[in-house]
Amino acid sequence: MQNNLLGHINTPKELRLLNQKDLPQLAQELREFIINIVATKEGHLGASLGVVELTIAIHYVFDTPTDLLIWDVGHQAYGHKILTGRKDVFHTNRQLGGISGFPKRGESEFDAFGTGHSSTSISATLGMAIASKLKGEDKQHIAVIGDASIASGMSFEGLNHAGVTDANLLVILNDNAIGIDPSVGALKQYLTNVKKGTQRRNNIIKALNFDYSGPIDGHDLDKIISELERLKTVKGPKLLHIITTKGKGLKQAEKDQVKYHAPGKFDSVTGELIAKSTLELPPKYQDVFGHTIVELAKQNEKIVGITPAMPTGSSLKFMMDELPERAFDVGIAEQHAVTLAAGMASQGLIPFCNIYSTFLQRAYDQIIHDVALQNLPVVFCLDRAGLVGQDGATHHGVFDLSYLRCIPNLIIFAPRNELELRNIMYTAQLGLKHPIAIRYPRGRGVTLDWRQPYSKIEIGKGIQLKEGERLAILSIGTIAKNVSEAIEGLPVSHYDIRFAKPLDEALLHSIFKTHETIVTVEDNVVAGGFGSAILEFVGIHNYKNTIKTLGVPDSFVEHGSAEELQALVGLDVEGLNQTFSDLIK
Amino acid sequence: MQNNLLGHINTPKELRLLNQKDLPQLAQELREFIINIVATKEGHLGASLGVVELTIAIHYVFDTPTDLLIWDVGHQAYGHKILTGRKDVFHTNRQLGGISGFPKRGESEFDAFGTGHSSTSISATLGMAIASKLKGEDKQHIAVIGDASIASGMSFEGLNHAGVTDANLLVILNDNAIGIDPSVGALKQYLTNVKKGTQRRNNIIKALNFDYSGPIDGHDLDKIISELERLKTVKGPKLLHIITTKGKGLKQAEKDQVKYHAPGKFDSVTGELIAKSTLELPPKYQDVFGHTIVELAKQNEKIVGITPAMPTGSSLKFMMDELPERAFDVGIAEQHAVTLAAGMASQGLIPFCNIYSTFLQRAYDQIIHDVALQNLPVVFCLDRAGLVGQDGATHHGVFDLSYLRCIPNLIIFAPRNELELRNIMYTAQLGLKHPIAIRYPRGRGVTLDWRQPYSKIEIGKGIQLKEGERLAILSIGTIAKNVSEAIEGLPVSHYDIRFAKPLDEALLHSIFKTHETIVTVEDNVVAGGFGSAILEFVGIHNYKNTIKTLGVPDSFVEHGSAEELQALVGLDVEGLNQTFSDLIK
Repeated sequence: MQNNLLGHINTPKELRLLNQKDLPQLAQELREFIINIVATKEGHLGASLGVVELTIAIHYVFDTPTDLLIWDVGHQAYGHKILTGRKDVFHTNRQLGGISGFPKRGESEFDAFGTGHSSTSISATLGMAIASKLKGEDKQHIAVIGDASIASGMSFEGLNHAGVTDANLLVILNDNAIGIDPSVGALKQYLTNVKKGTQRRNNIIKALNFDYSGPIDGHDLDKIISELERLKTVKGPKLLHIITTKGKGLKQAEKDQVKYHAPGKFDSVTGELIAKSTLELPPKYQDVFGHTIVELAKQNEKIVGITPAMPTGSSLKFMMDELPERAFDVGIAEQHAVTLAAGMASQGLIPFCNIYSTFLQRAYDQIIHDVALQNLPVVFCLDRAGLVGQDGATHHGVFDLSYLRCIPNLIIFAPRNELELRNIMYTAQLGLKHPIAIRYPRGRGVTLDWRQPYSKIEIGKGIQLKEGERLAILSIGTIAKNVSEAIEGLPVSHYDIRFAKPLDEALLHSIFKTHETIVTVEDNVVAGGFGSAILEFVGIHNYKNTIKTLGVPDSFVEHGSAEELQALVGLDVEGLNQTFSDLIK
Repeated sequence: MQNNLLGHINTPKELRLLNQKDLPQLAQELREFIINIVATKEGHLGASLGVVELTIAIHYVFDTPTDLLIWDVGHQAYGHKILTGRKDVFHTNRQLGGISGFPKRGESEFDAFGTGHSSTSISATLGMAIASKLKGEDKQHIAVIGDASIASGMSFEGLNHAGVTDANLLVILNDNAIGIDPSVGALKQYLTNVKKGTQRRNNIIKALNFDYSGPIDGHDLDKIISELERLKTVKGPKLLHIITTKGKGLKQAEKDQVKYHAPGKFDSVTGELIAKSTLELPPKYQDVFGHTIVELAKQNEKIVGITPAMPTGSSLKFMMDELPERAFDVGIAEQHAVTLAAGMASQGLIPFCNIYSTFLQRAYDQIIHDVALQNLPVVFCLDRAGLVGQDGATHHGVFDLSYLRCIPNLIIFAPRNELELRNIMYTAQLGLKHPIAIRYPRGRGVTLDWRQPYSKIEIGKGIQLKEGERLAILSIGTIAKNVSEAIEGLPVSHYDIRFAKPLDEALLHSIFKTHETIVTVEDNVVAGGFGSAILEFVGIHNYKNTIKTLGVPDSFVEHGSAEELQALVGLDVEGLNQTFSDLIK
């Protein structure tokens, strides 16, 4: 038995030279490698630990990268990255200039398709399989997808189409009964019954025309390999159901799967989390949301909460714990979440529908067609707005101001701090006449003493934060913090416009009449965003002021810390200070 | 037996006073009423004819509007409208100022939820059922959904959630094996097997925890009524599977279900279509697309075509007939359609993904995350862009320029006429480095002699159509026709900018330097749209020209003819002429 197999393997080709009996040792080494690096560099842990054996088996059996492999969601692909030439750079994972935390086409020929959002793998793999068929290429097309992701509507659409094709497609259902939080829904219950052996009839997968096999133990390398070898010879759409344990191999990660999904720094030997002292830090916006909705819901029985599979991430979990009848985790189902909210609002409830900005893109039509067109007062809480940091290009919430601003009837608000988030939530449940979208970032705010009495916010009213002359800076949302620091000592005015829609026209008229130059600042793309709204105001009223719009440029921003990325696009304190200083020279 | 039952029924309350034995006569009368009016006033025919018995049965058994009823897609709701107080205004269906062709909350308390897009009914009904439970109200919640719509991912998300609730929800699956075109997919095949009795195991609905009953004959009033009476007493989520014939009762409509979905004018007695002479008319943009993709695909084997359930409406049917291996109807599955296209493009194919502008809203995240982020050269053909006419607020394609313009890497083009549509399609398959969205309207173009030799269009180049002075009009897309007519005799310049992205900056600089006033014209909402792009250009380059942006205002536009609606928002020839004339006074 060799002491170090992983050290000698840089490509799947080398992996395939190993004896099958040595693979368990490789699995052990790969697991340790992942644990050791994620322990200090942070990142997603549990999902990749759960598929170590599967990762090895796939690359052992199939001829990657000729055979095409897609990892759904993609945070399970660390082992894959390490085995496909990125072992030596794996310590740069998710860092600025380093490798991405998700599969990425530009990074490796082994990453057949970029995945960050869930449930895309079946559709993409089917597209590839059809392409191979048309090109007369005999190859394999493999999608690895979790039980939480396969329950999303998009996956069903892919299965429904694949089932009537003769495409050479293998879907591997990695069933660990958990996404980031535990899986929910009827399909999950069904899969549980399959595992227990109590579901003998009504096989959904077979009903959709797939060749179904399993469930088998996803940590048993011999079993997986022999089953994959067999499936290589089966033509058409097929699904292999494997059972794995998320966090496998690290005791604490197996036990507390939610916490160890992306645990931050931890002790690689004991698994203990390395606690940061947070006593003197301002709260996370997520927790402000979570505590506030509980407070409000206890006073107002019309309030309900909805999250598509992010109870922990959004902190709606607080409400699910305290008021379980009125808080709903609907699974990875953003479309359903929004129209469910519309149905509830039509009957007089006040649904707070909490969806990450980037994932609300999945429910765009439902916002327009089911909520805004009917003018139903749903309260959208858009978490993770702006540049999210290490998750990178797939996850930045930098389009929402643009894609929401064109929708009639919708109010759009971005709180500057925790108090504003609390007050707009308070305002929203007093009985708005329109739907409202409230966008706020990931992470901590700026206010230690954040549990202050509520006060109502007047819809469409901005405020002045600093009085100056000539130059007026108009910001929206939490980027105001950078602006405030950047203008220290500068003789400029600063306004928080707060509402991207409706605009505070009275305030804008007074600003435009008293300042020659106007600068807008937002952590959204400039195209169609907040600055664009101000330009439309300028057009309508024919102002001749000089306008400069700052924000995210028209290109996808990669991963790195949120601060690094802000600097990259000129929205950090130094960059902003430079721009403002140049303008008042 | 009374001669005229329908004449005396204005509400479901009156309907419920009838003897059950008289209901078949009422069905006959209702069917004739629908046929007689749609024959002369036009509208959706087949779907409503297919559910005449079901409509009567539901209102007979349930206590509408206290019990809440949602018609999925909604074009099946004519009988419902006639029986719920709108008989006397039904002749105004789909006309400006008349009733909507779809259920609409503002129109009647019997329309529990507005539906125009498909597959929303289960989510909305579940939301209502949960609301009733929280409010302690004991009522029924009924969704009627077709087999094409239930196969969409969003429906699956709704079923998956409902299956683990105890919500009092009845889904009636109206299975007629057709949407607008025949249904496709594995679920459809499964349902066919259920009907034939060959599918005895693997009941998908039961696997999702629903109480399943059926299939029963959806034209047998006694059977439906007794089954609905029984289901009234069953608690929790349940699904009744009924079999109907689309177009039931009009021989031609039963026989040619695609044509009689919305047949235009026809003879109410014989059913014969009343043919319009179209010999001397320019072609429909749809047919230009359909014929052109066939021509191009015959020359370029990389081309494939994709439609989510609109082969006839988009005319992709031409390619499906001629090159069936390379043209795909994926069903009502926009999300899947786009990511399938991305998968294909990743393997070197050139997918033309044809989706109505309003339905592309369903795949917004997939455009960003799967196509644009990976910069895959998918060709999006956005049919039904602009104000679509009688289908109204749910269907106008007036947001696409705004929601697409903020996406990096994406090219956005709108042809002014048939030749430009052909030439951009030709250009797109020569090998673009980016994805492209091509938007064009419903209906006929302006060019009789449209099959001209192809020429390549330079990406990002606009053109001058008329030379004038002082005032420059910048239009995009087919609205150029109205502009051209409106400026006859006026000393103004007219440019077709063609690309909303990337902008032709060189041309814009020359325009801004030679004209004092600039007017932009688009049939998209002004917020974030083409005019907004021009304003951003103005901001960047600090031009001080006067800019006026014309387009669809920030409110939902109702139904009416496309011409009437254009006039309503000032985009008709007269309205434009008035605006331009005022500006050069």
